Amino acid sequence: MSPFRITPIENGSVTSVPGFQAAGVACGLKPNGALDFALVHATRPCVAAALFTTNAFKAAPVLYDQRILAQNASGLRAVAINSGCANACTGEQGLRDAAATAEAVGQALGVAPKSVMVMSTGVIGKPLPMASILAGVSQAAAALATGVEAGHIAARAIMTTDTRPKEAAALVAVGAYKFVVAGMVKGAGMIHPNMATMLSVITTDARISPELAHKALAAAADQSFHCMTVDGDTSTNDTVLLMANGAAEMPTIVSESAVEYRALVAGLTHVAQELAKAVARDGEGATRFVTIAVRGARRVAEARQVGKAVAHSPLVKTAIYGQDANWGRIICAVGYSGVPVDPLKVRVWLGDLELFREGGPYHVDEEHAKELLAQHDITITIDLGEGSESTTIWTCDLSHEYVSVNAHYRT
Amino acid sequence: MSPFRITPIENGSVTSVPGFQAAGVACGLKPNGALDFALVHATRPCVAAALFTTNAFKAAPVLYDQRILAQNASGLRAVAINSGCANACTGEQGLRDAAATAEAVGQALGVAPKSVMVMSTGVIGKPLPMASILAGVSQAAAALATGVEAGHIAARAIMTTDTRPKEAAALVAVGAYKFVVAGMVKGAGMIHPNMATMLSVITTDARISPELAHKALAAAADQSFHCMTVDGDTSTNDTVLLMANGAAEMPTIVSESAVEYRALVAGLTHVAQELAKAVARDGEGATRFVTIAVRGARRVAEARQVGKAVAHSPLVKTAIYGQDANWGRIICAVGYSGVPVDPLKVRVWLGDLELFREGGPYHVDEEHAKELLAQHDITITIDLGEGSESTTIWTCDLSHEYVSVNAHYRT
Repeated sequence: MSPFRITPIENGSVTSVPGFQAAGVACGLKPNGALDFALVHATRPCVAAALFTTNAFKAAPVLYDQRILAQNASGLRAVAINSGCANACTGEQGLRDAAATAEAVGQALGVAPKSVMVMSTGVIGKPLPMASILAGVSQAAAALATGVEAGHIAARAIMTTDTRPKEAAALVAVGAYKFVVAGMVKGAGMIHPNMATMLSVITTDARISPELAHKALAAAADQSFHCMTVDGDTSTNDTVLLMANGAAEMPTIVSESAVEYRALVAGLTHVAQELAKAVARDGEGATRFVTIAVRGARRVAEARQVGKAVAHSPLVKTAIYGQDANWGRIICAVGYSGVPVDPLKVRVWLGDLELFREGGPYHVDEEHAKELLAQHDITITIDLGEGSESTTIWTCDLSHEYVSVNAHYRT
Repeated sequence: MSPFRITPIENGSVTSVPGFQAAGVACGLKPNGALDFALVHATRPCVAAALFTTNAFKAAPVLYDQRILAQNASGLRAVAINSGCANACTGEQGLRDAAATAEAVGQALGVAPKSVMVMSTGVIGKPLPMASILAGVSQAAAALATGVEAGHIAARAIMTTDTRPKEAAALVAVGAYKFVVAGMVKGAGMIHPNMATMLSVITTDARISPELAHKALAAAADQSFHCMTVDGDTSTNDTVLLMANGAAEMPTIVSESAVEYRALVAGLTHVAQELAKAVARDGEGATRFVTIAVRGARRVAEARQVGKAVAHSPLVKTAIYGQDANWGRIICAVGYSGVPVDPLKVRVWLGDLELFREGGPYHVDEEHAKELLAQHDITITIDLGEGSESTTIWTCDLSHEYVSVNAHYRT
């Protein structure tokens, strides 16, 4: 019997965790008047951990939050998130605007500015419209509420080209202790395993040290956000933030070998995987959700390299959109992935249908393939026949609608 | 004054070179009855050099030609090229079919089978329809002709999703000597700098040793085919073949320091660049031809890495299709290219319009940008501000038509 248990919470949100409040308001950043400003507030100081974009052009809020995290990883109280403007490539003004936003949130909530983080998503290169932002801060602070619905509203306020909010939550039971992990994410395009225009806030009432919170978040992201791709682009703003308020009745986790640590990693991984899969499902213009399972690899890194090559191939993605069982394109992507493979050992399945074996086509039942490709959820399995390591990558197809969405994003 | 001169030949083809014949016929590989089988024949033995796909799944004709090249790099007499079927992932049968095709060409032309190479392009995983192929060999052998028109017909017979044949030729004058370099290429999708479903035959009457022919071809490809990308996919069949029949009155080139060697590399580079640009221009569904010039790099390899990241970005490509001066996506791709850059030093231009400087937008004249993006040919210049190395990458936009072409390629 497992020493801990993860139970998904239906209809959960970041406010499923005791001690968190949230709000989402419309402050005029989006021309259509939709919700565009969210606030998550913790009633007590949180241990914070965060992962940021690896892009060389880091947006102002990323640079700002990195500074806050370095100063105050045990005292975070709130995060403000706006959609509609990324505050990226905005120079010194961008940094001043990020700081002014945090300052305003601090004043509105009666907490120190250094206990507030900010996130932005939207168009690159436009200054943050501060009058709207400051109005958003006041509105959102006044609207803060507990209860699951408040989190749902916040999850809607951080959307850009997302067609739906994305949230997940789970109850973690370990021995006599219980805590909750919950999260929301935005992201639909410019999405890549290294966290492309993706913003996520994960809340928990687990008690943990800042160092281990960072390790736990990194471990969970490696099995979730880093296994998902829409179009291979990595944005300037990506951030995953974990806020742990320590409100649960449990000892503080201070060792990686503690069962509570493993339980927290499992809970974070569960929630982060649900969020990552939801992003791939909601990929811009996506008509199919594609799971690529790679096994028989010498190393996990090689399995991932193969899976990403297949997931990024525009030819594989368009074939899936066209419901064409063009396994040759899958094989081709495996072949150019850069991972050494023996063509005679590689096997490929679409669902339960083995398409490729011993260097050539195998049981290609086109009728059955058509049925499988007509489903919304598609699984491609690739066995490299080299070892025993495996991984899973989540992605979507490439449709006419992806082109439409991205050809006219700014206009 | 340059010690040699390259003069483009208008309306040239592979048969612009003395001593070469060509033919293109329809043998039933393409359902619509279009030309699908080409033959290039040299009336005297050629020095051969070739570059092949780096894909781990090499198609049968690639494996066959690699063997021929190892055995007989000074005695090549012909190459047969079929479109409509790639003879890839076809196992032992595929190798037998490649050999049988070469055998039939040898018999029809009265030359040894080991002096014949074969190339195939089209759908992966289907066996070569040998009855049609053998009929094609007979028809093509009977139709062989000299004169530029014969080469034009061959160039049409190797097309798949190409919308037009792609050919180039140049006269190279060096001292008292003259020779011709001419070529044809097919390729429109699955195109990547590492030679994606791209087949090219380059003919010349220059006299050169096999070793230096390989070096010269590799040097030319590095400045041409490897600088071009459509969708980042690298196929199982890519081949660039150089046939040098030595018919020109000149000493045999046996040293890299000879001016004749440099003249040949320049001639090959000119022709290969014209062919590579023609492929990018004819990219599947392309509505724009995009030149990405990267300068100010520490190393050429870094310039190329940045250029490719921008050229591969679906978000940059769709923005160009949508005529949207979304420079943020260019900057974003530079930032995730993996090349270390200082955001404050990077500058970006669209045509003559400087869009980005010192970490932020610069002179973004949207009206002028709109005019530039309405043109068919678009140039993006990126200065990294780190060094003095540069490169140029050619690509195209990503349109609705690309998705249409590739969603239903097999059906």
